[in-house]
Amino acid sequence: MSQEGLVFKMSCPDAVGIVARMTGLVAARGLNLAEVHTYSDVATKWFFARLRIEATGNGEETALLERDFSHFAAEARAEWSLRRLGHPQRVVVLASKETHCVTDLLWRRKFGELPVEIPLIISNHRACEELAAAEGVPFLHVPMQAENRDAAFREIARHCTAAQASAVVMARFMQILPAWFCAQFHGCVINIHHSFLPAFAGADPYRQAFERGVKLIGATCHYATEELDAGPIIDQEVVRVEHFHELGDLRRLGRDCERLALARGVRYHVEDRVLIHGSKTIVFRD
Amino acid sequence: MSQEGLVFKMSCPDAVGIVARMTGLVAARGLNLAEVHTYSDVATKWFFARLRIEATGNGEETALLERDFSHFAAEARAEWSLRRLGHPQRVVVLASKETHCVTDLLWRRKFGELPVEIPLIISNHRACEELAAAEGVPFLHVPMQAENRDAAFREIARHCTAAQASAVVMARFMQILPAWFCAQFHGCVINIHHSFLPAFAGADPYRQAFERGVKLIGATCHYATEELDAGPIIDQEVVRVEHFHELGDLRRLGRDCERLALARGVRYHVEDRVLIHGSKTIVFRD
Amino acid sequence: MSQEGLVFKMSCPDAVGIVARMTGLVAARGLNLAEVHTYSDVATKWFFARLRIEATGNGEETALLERDFSHFAAEARAEWSLRRLGHPQRVVVLASKETHCVTDLLWRRKFGELPVEIPLIISNHRACEELAAAEGVPFLHVPMQAENRDAAFREIARHCTAAQASAVVMARFMQILPAWFCAQFHGCVINIHHSFLPAFAGADPYRQAFERGVKLIGATCHYATEELDAGPIIDQEVVRVEHFHELGDLRRLGRDCERLALARGVRYHVEDRVLIHGSKTIVFRD
Amino acid sequence: MSQEGLVFKMSCPDAVGIVARMTGLVAARGLNLAEVHTYSDVATKWFFARLRIEATGNGEETALLERDFSHFAAEARAEWSLRRLGHPQRVVVLASKETHCVTDLLWRRKFGELPVEIPLIISNHRACEELAAAEGVPFLHVPMQAENRDAAFREIARHCTAAQASAVVMARFMQILPAWFCAQFHGCVINIHHSFLPAFAGADPYRQAFERGVKLIGATCHYATEELDAGPIIDQEVVRVEHFHELGDLRRLGRDCERLALARGVRYHVEDRVLIHGSKTIVFRD
Repeated sequence: MSQEGLVFKMSCPDAVGIVARMTGLVAARGLNLAEVHTYSDVATKWFFARLRIEATGNGEETALLERDFSHFAAEARAEWSLRRLGHPQRVVVLASKETHCVTDLLWRRKFGELPVEIPLIISNHRACEELAAAEGVPFLHVPMQAENRDAAFREIARHCTAAQASAVVMARFMQILPAWFCAQFHGCVINIHHSFLPAFAGADPYRQAFERGVKLIGATCHYATEELDAGPIIDQEVVRVEHFHELGDLRRLGRDCERLALARGVRYHVEDRVLIHGSKTIVFRD
Repeated sequence: MSQEGLVFKMSCPDAVGIVARMTGLVAARGLNLAEVHTYSDVATKWFFARLRIEATGNGEETALLERDFSHFAAEARAEWSLRRLGHPQRVVVLASKETHCVTDLLWRRKFGELPVEIPLIISNHRACEELAAAEGVPFLHVPMQAENRDAAFREIARHCTAAQASAVVMARFMQILPAWFCAQFHGCVINIHHSFLPAFAGADPYRQAFERGVKLIGATCHYATEELDAGPIIDQEVVRVEHFHELGDLRRLGRDCERLALARGVRYHVEDRVLIHGSKTIVFRD
Repeated sequence: MSQEGLVFKMSCPDAVGIVARMTGLVAARGLNLAEVHTYSDVATKWFFARLRIEATGNGEETALLERDFSHFAAEARAEWSLRRLGHPQRVVVLASKETHCVTDLLWRRKFGELPVEIPLIISNHRACEELAAAEGVPFLHVPMQAENRDAAFREIARHCTAAQASAVVMARFMQILPAWFCAQFHGCVINIHHSFLPAFAGADPYRQAFERGVKLIGATCHYATEELDAGPIIDQEVVRVEHFHELGDLRRLGRDCERLALARGVRYHVEDRVLIHGSKTIVFRD
Repeated sequence: MSQEGLVFKMSCPDAVGIVARMTGLVAARGLNLAEVHTYSDVATKWFFARLRIEATGNGEETALLERDFSHFAAEARAEWSLRRLGHPQRVVVLASKETHCVTDLLWRRKFGELPVEIPLIISNHRACEELAAAEGVPFLHVPMQAENRDAAFREIARHCTAAQASAVVMARFMQILPAWFCAQFHGCVINIHHSFLPAFAGADPYRQAFERGVKLIGATCHYATEELDAGPIIDQEVVRVEHFHELGDLRRLGRDCERLALARGVRYHVEDRVLIHGSKTIVFRD
């Protein structure tokens, strides 16, 4: 999908006429809609939308639309955002000992598959340091021991804030986040868990899967919340395994699932395609 | 997805404000939109939409909306339809020697997965006759020899018209349709071809696949057009195969692809989810 | 795969030379091996094999091979079986209110995809009665109330034994089996659970999946054991779902997973392709 | 799967007793079989096998086995090889303007997913030069114009030979190989074509797929032969696409298919899991 124009995202109580009013604002400014996604949740009577608007994106035009949407949203009691596309969003990556997800994100960023800028990679190990250097991405080593965990997370939080990150991506970071960290970056911390949740939450999921003897393994990209591996799921990926696959094979096959699910999840997030609704997500995929 | 209310489907040249006007008509009648799907094709500047409208569906309400849409469509130079859901569409099934697709369609119809009525099964063989009888569906045997082909198709066409069918489904019918038949039922004849088109068009695709040594086989559900196996594709399905699979295994594995792709394709069609655009389809999946 | 000849299946402690000795017995009788599958489990040092032997299958030949294998197995401390293919195995089906799995098994049996004979369908409801009659399969209604559960299962067990069933297939039977029943038919009771286990074990897994907001749902074919939904997994199948899929859509999409996973699992079982190893299975797929 | 011991690979006319004799040689040396894969092609009466033998791999042991297998192969008129695992095979990579496949192969090599050494990357463009340098892999720029094509391929051939490459991997090399080159490196040149062959052979397959309106796109890893895109297929991968995916989206989604199919194909090749049989492959997957 094209990365041009403006993207409008909103959620609010459902009501008769809401699509007409919302799209009418865009039409009144003489602008074309390149993409329209809406969803009405029957159970909760809640409405979700994402519009991509063809706009030159000059300041005045954007400001006028922003004002229009602001009035509309106030009436509709909506949460909303309007953002100019074409400027990569800033994403801070948290890493640990495994390098495959970080490598993948860096490659996709460099070659235009992922419209992000990575101002900083933070890790409690040095496995990704060389990789970051080769790509010219600043690397920060924040050791994590039991006695300094909270201080370490305070430091990470400061850097994420300073970097004006619109997402904090746990690329196999493997650390349980403090509750205050989840709250501070609510809806912005994306984790990749190496199982198809809710199966095999917690530690060493490939070993759990191996011992259970499942015939499919997978990975889950989800928003991190205070409760471990229980946040809203953005995307999942699976692959078949057979009896002859050893634990090492599961890890190898699973890495491809992790790469794919994380890359998709991050892309959906930074393209404003994801809306969180309680413990679930609405994902307006392309 | 719910099968209630009204469904509006349209396509027309793209224009600023078209979504707002279209949805505004529904809002003006005080009706809620349960589903909104739109697509703007950049290359051809063409617009496609499907709305599911929450409506009690009484006659007056429908008539008013119909008038509104009619005026709107005239202005927008749109092709359109408005239909009440909850009344199964009528589908005539053409069959031959294989029974798996017919069995599958009959089951899905009976148990509510497929909102269709099947007023007639027509076949040039008698393989499905007993099956039709068991389900209480009329069966018509129309033999096909080289010398009577055109007359046979004239008979089939008469029955399809008399049955007021909104789709003619070739459930492994295996006959090449005359050009006039394709023209008469343009956009309404759904075929299942037992390969992932455009690979292995024509006769005995499993044998072709077996001889080529592919590692994936599949099935393609598409609208039949005058050119064999070249019509707009609605859906496709694939399955992995390996060197130890014999031709019979390919046929067995392929049948599951055929069942799934055909059932999805028919459902999309009868739920007004498919719009044809040249040699392609827009499919507003659920 | 061809359904001719003899199939030999065994498991025993791994040892140097075991493949050579086992296949040597077949060679010594001048017979060809059509399929050879072996697996050595490193962790438990256990060996598993399945041979398909090209044999006319006359009585004498089979008797001689049986004697050879018997001596060999005694030495190797092996569990083993030798069976003539081409004679469908007998499978008793347990059903309840849902008909899709039963319909699917009946079709596959009838049209040669599944080499089984179904001498009896037993159900605690009458939903499948008409279906069974149409296919000429005896149907037994065994009501199940809290107070008569054990007696009901005693009756089912008697019928399974009398039918000389080599498998008891729970085609959405939805009843928890008594421990004694699992023990009596150990390794022969095949269940289809409508989730990708171990996620969503227990009641109403589609609702659980819907509430958790997963992006993939699935089905698991496994051997029933005393512990609910915890037996050795034979096969699994998944399908993608999105935020707009309602609970009814999950059930509809899931049914296709159930049909496929169950049909594969039953076929593997009756073709002697499955060996149970603790809580896991070895499946020599074709 | 473990990368230890010896791997024996062979193909020959099928015969009674061949498995017993082949595995008997290993047993006679007191060695254990870690993996046994065989396949008998019914149509051509040809036999294929791959054995992984648990061996310390000291020189004497290997030499004895080599002699045993040599005698056996002469009698059986077999093509065969015996190779010590644990020493990465040497793979020369041919690249052009696209970097994703090269990046992926380099990562998998570095982190142990792919047991290969890459002594050289050769390219007719400089897009991968920096990438090669960062990974410490020698890079050779061989420009290709119409007038020097044959000379350029002579140079590439010399380097492949000098590098003692057991595979030449075309990682989106996009050049048609001369017939003599295919002949010289017969069964060793692995290509990734960006469609599910045989659909969309030749130039710009994503555009072809886009214009045809298919609902699945894919990639094919195959051995290059003189006839373009017609060589024996090793593996294929597909991904669903929808009407809203533009040509650029197809390229993006397809790249993931290419990466996966190529990485698997190369791994199967260097682990001696692939045997070519006419225009097809036998792939003893793990």
